[in-house]
Amino acid sequence: MERQSEEVIRNTVNAIAPLDGEAMAQARARQDQLTKPRGSLGRLEELSIRMAGIRREAVPRLAQKVIITMAGDHGVVAEGVSAYPQQVTAQMVHNFLRGGAAINVLARCTGARIVVVDMGVAASLAPHPQLILKKVGPGTANMARGPAMSREQALQAIRAGIEVFEEELGKGLDIVGTGDMGICNTTPSSAICAVITGEPVESVTGRGTGVDDIQLSHKIAVIKQAILVNRPDPKDPLDVLSKVGGFEIGGLAGVMLGAAAHRIPVVIDGFISGAAALIATGLCPELKNYLIASHVSVEAGHQAILRHMGLQPLLDLDMRLGEGTGAALGIFLAEAAARTLAEMATFAEAGVSEKEENG
Amino acid sequence: MERQSEEVIRNTVNAIAPLDGEAMAQARARQDQLTKPRGSLGRLEELSIRMAGIRREAVPRLAQKVIITMAGDHGVVAEGVSAYPQQVTAQMVHNFLRGGAAINVLARCTGARIVVVDMGVAASLAPHPQLILKKVGPGTANMARGPAMSREQALQAIRAGIEVFEEELGKGLDIVGTGDMGICNTTPSSAICAVITGEPVESVTGRGTGVDDIQLSHKIAVIKQAILVNRPDPKDPLDVLSKVGGFEIGGLAGVMLGAAAHRIPVVIDGFISGAAALIATGLCPELKNYLIASHVSVEAGHQAILRHMGLQPLLDLDMRLGEGTGAALGIFLAEAAARTLAEMATFAEAGVSEKEENG
Repeated sequence: MERQSEEVIRNTVNAIAPLDGEAMAQARARQDQLTKPRGSLGRLEELSIRMAGIRREAVPRLAQKVIITMAGDHGVVAEGVSAYPQQVTAQMVHNFLRGGAAINVLARCTGARIVVVDMGVAASLAPHPQLILKKVGPGTANMARGPAMSREQALQAIRAGIEVFEEELGKGLDIVGTGDMGICNTTPSSAICAVITGEPVESVTGRGTGVDDIQLSHKIAVIKQAILVNRPDPKDPLDVLSKVGGFEIGGLAGVMLGAAAHRIPVVIDGFISGAAALIATGLCPELKNYLIASHVSVEAGHQAILRHMGLQPLLDLDMRLGEGTGAALGIFLAEAAARTLAEMATFAEAGVSEKEENG
Repeated sequence: MERQSEEVIRNTVNAIAPLDGEAMAQARARQDQLTKPRGSLGRLEELSIRMAGIRREAVPRLAQKVIITMAGDHGVVAEGVSAYPQQVTAQMVHNFLRGGAAINVLARCTGARIVVVDMGVAASLAPHPQLILKKVGPGTANMARGPAMSREQALQAIRAGIEVFEEELGKGLDIVGTGDMGICNTTPSSAICAVITGEPVESVTGRGTGVDDIQLSHKIAVIKQAILVNRPDPKDPLDVLSKVGGFEIGGLAGVMLGAAAHRIPVVIDGFISGAAALIATGLCPELKNYLIASHVSVEAGHQAILRHMGLQPLLDLDMRLGEGTGAALGIFLAEAAARTLAEMATFAEAGVSEKEENG
């Protein structure tokens, strides 16, 4: 099992190629012929050109949009680091399946379908046609006392993410967004962020769902303890994931790797997706070019994550919800970028005069 | 005619009331019961609450979205302040009517209908079912030599904007975006911005469609000359509009006033819409609460305009195209905000546990 997972991941990482320079040059040339001053659509133009390089086509089309929201629980909840009880993870999964959560509404706004995955919820979820079961375990172990999971489980989680992505690709998918649900999961995300970026725990730990000052100090102490107890190796992303990570975080890293291997743009959500991206880009630095940062979260460590990967967020709306809510908005902007490239008339087609060059 | 226009504008301004505090309180209470940590949707929550106050209903619905794009020409083009020839204004109006411009694509993405208005294009445009004719004149006069228009024309432009808005309201409209087209119109917009905000001309004048350094210095000199020749009174928005404004700028100011009078949220686009908003909020300071700033443009003066009105933009994507392109993206975010408020389940409805309060 462990060797099989290793092989799936290795093959996926090896399939991730650089962006296609020729498609990008063609997309840029087309942008410069469209009826607007050159560059006047700003970051939408850049985004359309990058997606051309990802998709390896001069005019990429984003017909099918998918948001993969992965849920998991965290043993570190026993340390009292969250403002909400653990059962909320399972309750929110039901809410996703009934269509009542923020991600459901925003995915409807964007025209994306949602895929909900149980990566490791600490409850037996009733089968549901829209729920994919990839449970690695009933929540992780308490990382403040020992590793959150075994190395084998870390590999299994990433592999499951690759598999989920590939199943969705088979149903039709042109762009994917990532989302998470897991009470406590800002705690492992801050730990991953501190270990990999090298920033102090204090500066990358926030209030999550809304802890107060005393709880925040306690949360910081718990994260420090987890790092001290486990000594994760910053150079080994699998070691970091297994010691201070989460099942949904590993799964999301797998989704990102799977998408890049198939030349699909990935719109990453906020802090938890960012922590998954740190793991995934640690396994494959080239992946970074396939990632579109939808927004910057209020959560303290998110800026450090984006800086570490050299990604500039599209939105800054003081959001901190997760679920893929930022990704849903980012997918809208990515589609808007692709459609301007595809659907706008050129100066020649529209009979519009071009810029006067100085004699 | 002048007295009639004055009366229409006065009645419209008088109809603009404060936001409805009760509807806002109800919207906030509902946001706090939705299945997410309080405040975790950030500015989307604030936006939904403000729209409740505008619409005077706890759960506003934005079914019909409209972008009004107004076109006009500018006599100051004779001074050589634009990188594009004047005929591009009319050519782009045709492009709008054929659906090939950026605003057409982005309005399709957002699901908004576009209304194109000839406020003063310097060409005879062929009749077209989607083109509204409100031509005040065939382009303004050259403001570097004298007033851009008479006070009567300024009143006529604003009145036309109110009328266009009210006609569209009659067809069904829940939120409106503003857009502009007019070769040279960053020049009057910078002049309006300098006069009303008191910022130096140099710091509020940008490259428009893309002039070089020498042309930029010349553009600044032309704007200074226009202000020197006309001496617009910063305390009199009509004087500013008539001396250094434009027909489409006056029209957009009218759209904003008309919308607020009917309690419709207005998503303003970039720099030119911002200049119109300066005129309109000068006539009615209360209007400010009805304005949603979609984005901050690359154009130098836009930040000064937003600061002057105390508006915070939703997006910062290095855009500088106009037409309503930023407004189209902003309307999407406004709709997303309204729909989360309307469509998300409450904690009670979804059977999700609420936050644990400390004992």
